[in-house]
Amino acid sequence: MRRFAAETAKDLVRSRSLQRQNRRRCLLSPLWPLLSSGSQSRFSSSASSPDSPPAMGSSPPVTLDTINPKVLKCEYAVRGEIVSIAQRLQQELKENPGSHPFDEILYCNIGNPQSLGQQPITFFREVLALCDHPSILDKSETQGLFSADAIERAWQILDQIPGRATGAYSHSQGIKGLRDTIAAGIEARDGFPADPNDIFLTDGASPAVHMMMQLLTRSESDGILCPIPQYPLYSASITLHGGTLVPYYLDEEAGWGLEISELQKQLDSAKSKGITVRALVVINPGNPTGQVLAEENQRQIVEFCKKEGLVLLADEVYQENIYVPDKQFHSFKKIARSMGYGDNDISLVSFQSVSKGYHGECGKRGGYMEVTGFSADVREQIYKVASVNLCSNITGQILASLVMNPPKVGDESYESYCEERDGILSSLARRAKTLENAFNSLEGITCNRAEGAMYLFPRVYLPQKAIKAAEAAKMAPDAFYCRRLLNATGIVVVAGSGFGQVPGTWHFRCTILPQEDKIPAVVSRLTEFHKGFMDEFRD
Amino acid sequence: MRRFAAETAKDLVRSRSLQRQNRRRCLLSPLWPLLSSGSQSRFSSSASSPDSPPAMGSSPPVTLDTINPKVLKCEYAVRGEIVSIAQRLQQELKENPGSHPFDEILYCNIGNPQSLGQQPITFFREVLALCDHPSILDKSETQGLFSADAIERAWQILDQIPGRATGAYSHSQGIKGLRDTIAAGIEARDGFPADPNDIFLTDGASPAVHMMMQLLTRSESDGILCPIPQYPLYSASITLHGGTLVPYYLDEEAGWGLEISELQKQLDSAKSKGITVRALVVINPGNPTGQVLAEENQRQIVEFCKKEGLVLLADEVYQENIYVPDKQFHSFKKIARSMGYGDNDISLVSFQSVSKGYHGECGKRGGYMEVTGFSADVREQIYKVASVNLCSNITGQILASLVMNPPKVGDESYESYCEERDGILSSLARRAKTLENAFNSLEGITCNRAEGAMYLFPRVYLPQKAIKAAEAAKMAPDAFYCRRLLNATGIVVVAGSGFGQVPGTWHFRCTILPQEDKIPAVVSRLTEFHKGFMDEFRD
Repeated sequence: MRRFAAETAKDLVRSRSLQRQNRRRCLLSPLWPLLSSGSQSRFSSSASSPDSPPAMGSSPPVTLDTINPKVLKCEYAVRGEIVSIAQRLQQELKENPGSHPFDEILYCNIGNPQSLGQQPITFFREVLALCDHPSILDKSETQGLFSADAIERAWQILDQIPGRATGAYSHSQGIKGLRDTIAAGIEARDGFPADPNDIFLTDGASPAVHMMMQLLTRSESDGILCPIPQYPLYSASITLHGGTLVPYYLDEEAGWGLEISELQKQLDSAKSKGITVRALVVINPGNPTGQVLAEENQRQIVEFCKKEGLVLLADEVYQENIYVPDKQFHSFKKIARSMGYGDNDISLVSFQSVSKGYHGECGKRGGYMEVTGFSADVREQIYKVASVNLCSNITGQILASLVMNPPKVGDESYESYCEERDGILSSLARRAKTLENAFNSLEGITCNRAEGAMYLFPRVYLPQKAIKAAEAAKMAPDAFYCRRLLNATGIVVVAGSGFGQVPGTWHFRCTILPQEDKIPAVVSRLTEFHKGFMDEFRD
Repeated sequence: MRRFAAETAKDLVRSRSLQRQNRRRCLLSPLWPLLSSGSQSRFSSSASSPDSPPAMGSSPPVTLDTINPKVLKCEYAVRGEIVSIAQRLQQELKENPGSHPFDEILYCNIGNPQSLGQQPITFFREVLALCDHPSILDKSETQGLFSADAIERAWQILDQIPGRATGAYSHSQGIKGLRDTIAAGIEARDGFPADPNDIFLTDGASPAVHMMMQLLTRSESDGILCPIPQYPLYSASITLHGGTLVPYYLDEEAGWGLEISELQKQLDSAKSKGITVRALVVINPGNPTGQVLAEENQRQIVEFCKKEGLVLLADEVYQENIYVPDKQFHSFKKIARSMGYGDNDISLVSFQSVSKGYHGECGKRGGYMEVTGFSADVREQIYKVASVNLCSNITGQILASLVMNPPKVGDESYESYCEERDGILSSLARRAKTLENAFNSLEGITCNRAEGAMYLFPRVYLPQKAIKAAEAAKMAPDAFYCRRLLNATGIVVVAGSGFGQVPGTWHFRCTILPQEDKIPAVVSRLTEFHKGFMDEFRD
């Protein structure tokens, strides 16, 4: 495995020149060189109308040769080609039922729970609706439609907004009262103080990640240590900002373990190539890998960042999604503070989102980052960049405050809230286990358990015959497998090459999100497909 | 005037080296070199907690010297230093009423109508609330609380969302059914076809502007023609993406007229310096300048872009805000199509936002861009970048569809909707006229009329004595004037230097948004202050 890692680091340094050769149509990833995954475009065909002309008549002002090459280079597989194909199949099924061997498309490509039927948390939606239309708050009918604590919470939130104006731009870090609530939620979670002035509310976690990459990246000589496999927002953001992704490999055989020796090795290797490593990205619980870090491991990571002067970028958006009794979520801030490290010792950014957790409110685009251990003048620069976009959406801001301060014992909604939350989380745990067992029962598949997050990332030991067939089809072997799976079953998963993997190994990411009554069908469709695939290609 | 423009273009080319000298604390703007506007930081002091440490104890990983210099260079005046001071004064007034010669802060720095008491459009908020909490839709109490057409519209919208899941990520361009509605709204407005596949829904217009700048900018050799004065989102975005702002000056004496000869001159001048000009930004109605382009002028602009192979980036977010009977809004797409130019002839992006118009829903962060005349493969790249952030917030998406398809004759809400809309727009027109007259009545101030948008941009002929006093205070003269105005009256306006102006001229931007019953007090406070200022500094 180490050998492969070293090779990949070399590829990384070569990526610039590779990219130049590859401007016309960037089907190759700079990080994990692949065969083209097919002749069709990698991104949604629905993005372009079929009737639109190929280019300007005389002198087209914009062509692939004249756009920003970083845009061309950037990749984001979870909304890539396989989703375009799935959308086409869905359209075909709608227009011509029975045209495929399945009757629906199951989108297991992305952590989007409500798209698969998960219901929102009632209390959260009650408060949002009341804040959207406050003039009903004191109408008598409202008492019959909304719970008393939702009405009270809406009043509280409105009182925190100057002029009760939910339609006004807020402070660029977010409404102060909501940041107070979130800071209190962090304190309650961690047992250490949190400062509302450290909170930056954002439209989901993605813009927060971009802001930090933008801040830290001066040129391709600046590197960011990222896990491999990783959530491709990180590789995309680093590419768009012109930096270098410095990979560190999670150890699949140790349950996607994160070893400090591997961090050190990759850091040293990057340094020897003239790369200044600025930050370490840790995704905990892991995406796409589903592991939950042990406390001791987290302490080592904090120590490593302190020693090496790295910013710790902690993706903690799955903090509520823990499915095994032997693991717990600990924020990196709690770990650092419990080691006695304060603002003077470590620069730490924690990302949180309303899209994940038990609530899965992806469409609301709420989230925040907690920025600690930066000097006042650097944080002022972060504030300035936030201010250019004015503020994040107020609905998302309100929701972020609700997520960090849900109903409490004694509130009218408390019991129903707990029931909804626990129902979702325990069902997710069962689904994770069922799918994990199903994968592990298949020939040539091994799958670590999903301790947390929303994904399984099984490894497929593809027969040589399948790899040859993929090559003939000009596709990466795992993309070939995923495409065949989609065409046979309607199940959409994302090939491991979209997240990065040890070269020569093949995986895919599958969410655990189909509703529980559909899981048996998913398992049987997966099983039947895989058996057929192996029968076709077994060496 | 032309002489100054040429000088400024030279400054622009020098900006890189200037910037290098200026890394420690970037108080100088690259575009319109200024004195420091004071010793205090330019950005909100509330962004940094007073107790936070200056930097890491041993080796701080991030300092102003090691962040992305583009971030350091970027400026965004409308949320800059003056707002920080205003926030401090507001806090002081709260803690110690009577501590200042005014009893409230009036934020005229930013187009944020609801923060100043404008009420949201009832129908829009009804629909949003129902979409946030659809489970009340078929309850009997709901009939008493919401209008029938809002209930019907909510059902229609929910039916356009797969699984009625307003909490799910949507297609990265936005929910298809909402894009259909918006395209139909554009068609109704323009009388020319619009394609829903050309629409990209975004969190307000700002992210859309960033996406286009990111796409078009490869290096500092790529230039974007921008009006001066301009809305500083453009300069900030160009700086963040590493491009060069190529200024063209609006003619203040011709009512902020846009002359093709000036465009040509600046384009040629930029070319001669080795800059490849990619696009032309036009803000119509103008921000900060409030002019509305004449149809014939728009035709010339389209012709110019076609001839020179420039992308036309049309900021049309104030399309509903027209206050004079002799001007009308025409979209650039309508103009281009009426000239017989189609997708093959011109690349055109139109930006729209729910933050402006009569509705002013800034906090909802809804908006879209209509992207026409790009080849399919380039648009695929735009889609890819959109997909990295998954989608814009669904509440903003829904609101964008409502703005482009408000209640129609016969709908239950139609009359009250018209009353609310017309009440706001006619009041804005009266406020614009009253403030314009007030400014023009003052010694040493001239002010073009606000034909549209939400701002006046009066020119202040500052006495030499005031300019000297500003220099002594290490401030730009217009910033000095604005600071004095704030301290004396509590009125927050933004100095012209934040938008760009012909060197040696001084302006400020003042919104027309204080509620109508406050306008007399604004006028008398402004008048009293200005008279006192002139008495103090008259040469």
